[in-house]
Amino acid sequence: MNVVVIHGSTRKNGNTEYLTYQAVPKNEGTHIYLRDYRITPITDQRHEEDGFTPADDDMGKLVHIMLQHDILLFSTPIYWYSMSGPMKTFIDRWSQIMRDPKFPHFREELKKKTAYLIAVGGDHPAIKGLPLVQQFQYICQFFEMTFGGYVIGTANKPGQIIHDQTALHAASMLLKKPEN
Amino acid sequence: MNVVVIHGSTRKNGNTEYLTYQAVPKNEGTHIYLRDYRITPITDQRHEEDGFTPADDDMGKLVHIMLQHDILLFSTPIYWYSMSGPMKTFIDRWSQIMRDPKFPHFREELKKKTAYLIAVGGDHPAIKGLPLVQQFQYICQFFEMTFGGYVIGTANKPGQIIHDQTALHAASMLLKKPEN
Amino acid sequence: MNVVVIHGSTRKNGNTEYLTYQAVPKNEGTHIYLRDYRITPITDQRHEEDGFTPADDDMGKLVHIMLQHDILLFSTPIYWYSMSGPMKTFIDRWSQIMRDPKFPHFREELKKKTAYLIAVGGDHPAIKGLPLVQQFQYICQFFEMTFGGYVIGTANKPGQIIHDQTALHAASMLLKKPEN
Amino acid sequence: MNVVVIHGSTRKNGNTEYLTYQAVPKNEGTHIYLRDYRITPITDQRHEEDGFTPADDDMGKLVHIMLQHDILLFSTPIYWYSMSGPMKTFIDRWSQIMRDPKFPHFREELKKKTAYLIAVGGDHPAIKGLPLVQQFQYICQFFEMTFGGYVIGTANKPGQIIHDQTALHAASMLLKKPEN
Repeated sequence: MNVVVIHGSTRKNGNTEYLTYQAVPKNEGTHIYLRDYRITPITDQRHEEDGFTPADDDMGKLVHIMLQHDILLFSTPIYWYSMSGPMKTFIDRWSQIMRDPKFPHFREELKKKTAYLIAVGGDHPAIKGLPLVQQFQYICQFFEMTFGGYVIGTANKPGQIIHDQTALHAASMLLKKPEN
Repeated sequence: MNVVVIHGSTRKNGNTEYLTYQAVPKNEGTHIYLRDYRITPITDQRHEEDGFTPADDDMGKLVHIMLQHDILLFSTPIYWYSMSGPMKTFIDRWSQIMRDPKFPHFREELKKKTAYLIAVGGDHPAIKGLPLVQQFQYICQFFEMTFGGYVIGTANKPGQIIHDQTALHAASMLLKKPEN
Repeated sequence: MNVVVIHGSTRKNGNTEYLTYQAVPKNEGTHIYLRDYRITPITDQRHEEDGFTPADDDMGKLVHIMLQHDILLFSTPIYWYSMSGPMKTFIDRWSQIMRDPKFPHFREELKKKTAYLIAVGGDHPAIKGLPLVQQFQYICQFFEMTFGGYVIGTANKPGQIIHDQTALHAASMLLKKPEN
Repeated sequence: MNVVVIHGSTRKNGNTEYLTYQAVPKNEGTHIYLRDYRITPITDQRHEEDGFTPADDDMGKLVHIMLQHDILLFSTPIYWYSMSGPMKTFIDRWSQIMRDPKFPHFREELKKKTAYLIAVGGDHPAIKGLPLVQQFQYICQFFEMTFGGYVIGTANKPGQIIHDQTALHAASMLLKKPEN
C-alpha cells in the first residue's frame, strides 16, 4: 500500500495507534512516529531578507519520505481539542519547507495526494474534535490536496479504544471507501 | 490592569502584537512572549505509574505568573488554521501542570479567570480562524473559565494589520465590553 | 424501544429514511414524518404583551408525542448545510412551546432525554455537515439534553446510501453504544 | 448602493434590523422583508420524472429582485443557532429555482455576486453563531459567490443591540472594507 502514516502520539502503543493500525496495519505502508525525530519549532522568517535560517534537524528527511507516497494518513491524539504538539510543530514547519530550495515542488506534490485523518480523544471527541477536522480540511484545501476522510475515536485510559466499535469499523474501511 | 497577555508569535513586532496592543498597551498589564522562554513539549505520561517526569524549563515560572492575574489574553498568529506551535506547546503542557504537586489548585484557579483571544491570519481568517475560536472555547469550557470574547484580524505581510479598521476597533473595545 | 424518530425529509423513502431505519427499524419505536403534519412557522412574539398567538396546527400534538419518549432521534436530509426547512420550522416553534401554558414543563422534560442525529447529504457532508452537528449540539446544550451521538451519511441520488457502508454500520450501532 | 438586503426577522423593528441598518440604511438599497411574502416550503422533487411542481407564491418575484443586485446582504436573527425559519425556507427553495426554466442562469448569476451576513443572537452568538457563519460560507462556496464578510451582534430583549458597540461599528464598516 503506497501510504505513509504520520503518527503524532507522544505515547507508544496508545489508543490512537491502535485505531490507526485498523486502517493501515503496522507491517504495511510506511510508519513515521514523529516522537522519534528531532523537529525544530518554526520561527516565522517569511518576511526577512534572507528568509529562513536552515534548521539542522530531521524535518527534510521526513518530508522527503512523505512526498514519496500518494496517500498520507495523519494520526493524532486530540490534545486540547486539536492535533498534538509534535504534529503541530511538524505541520507548522511546512511554511518553511514551502520556501526551501531543496523542495521546489512541495506544493505541487501535495496537490496530487490524498490525506486522511485519524484522531482519538477522551472528552466528547465526536463533537469537540470537529474544529480539528475543520482545521485539517483547511490545510488540505490550501494545498488542493484531496481530503479522503476521517475517523474520530473515543478513548481516555490505555486500551479503551477497543470499546469504540463504530470507530474501529470506520477505520478499517477508511482507505477502502470511495472519497466523499 | 490585572491582565496577563500570553504572546504566541514567533516574530517580533508583528501584526498580531500590534493588534493585541490595541487591547492591552505594551506598558500596561503583564506581557509574556513565549518565544523568549524554554518550554519542553509534553510527553503523555498521564498513565505511567510514576506520572510525569518533571521538566527542567520555564513552564512553572510562566504558569506561576499566569495564575497571579484575573484576566488572560491569549494572542497568537494563525498558523495552519490554529494557534502557533509555541502556544500549542505551552497549552499542551497544562495536562502535566494539572498533575504537578507544585500547582495543586491549577484547575480551580483557572475557573475564576476570564480568557480572551486575539488571532491574526492571512487566509480568510474571519472564516478559517473559526475552528481555532471553537477550540479555544472548548479549552475554556474544560476549566469552566469564562471566555470573554475574541478578535480576529486579517493581515499577511508585515504592517498590514493597520488596514483592518474593524479588528483594531474591536480589539480596543475587547476588555471593556461586558462579557457575552 | 422507547424512542421517537422525527423525520425531516420531504421526500418519501429517501436515503435519509433508509439510513435512519438502520438505527430504528420502521416497525419499532414511534415514527413522526413532519411532512405529514401542519406546522405553522413561528412569529417571534416573545416580547409582546400578550405573548404568542396560539397556532391552530399539529404542533401541540407532535410535542405531546415527543415528550412521551426518552430517546429522540432527529433524522434530516442536509439542505444547504443545515437541517431541512420542515425540521427547522418544527424546532423554531419550540420557542413558543416554552411559553405555552399547555406545556409548563417542556424544558424540564427535555432535560431528561437523550437526543441523536442522523443526517444525509450529497456535498461532502462529513465536512460540510459539521455546522449542523454543532447547531444540534448547542440545541441539546440549551436544554441540558444529552447528545448521544450522530451519524452522517453520504448520498445524492435515490438509493445511493447503500454504498456508504461506514454510515450504515454506524447507524446500526448508534443507539446501542454507550453515550460519548 | 446596488445592494439588496434580505431580512429574515419575523419581528418588525427588532435588534437584527437595527444592526442591519448600520450597514445599509433603511432608505438606501433595496430591502426585502421575507415575512411580508408567501414562500412555500420546498418538497424535494429533484429526482421525480416531471421535476418540481411549480409553486404559486412570491418566490419567483423575490429571486428576480435579488438577481438585479450585485451585493446581497442576508440579515437574520439567530433562531436555535442557525438562520430563521423564513430565511431557511427561502434558501431551501433555491434548489427548485436552480431547476426552474424561468431562471436558466441562476447559478451563473449568483457566482458574480458578493454576499454578506448580519446575524443577531442572545445566547453567546459570538461562539454559538459560528456554525451559522460556516453554513453560510458553504452556501457561498457552492455558488462560487464571494463571501464578503459578516457581523454577529449580541442582543436578547428589544433594543439591547445598542449596547453592542463593537457590532454596530463593524456593521457600519461591513460594506466599506476590502473583502477578506
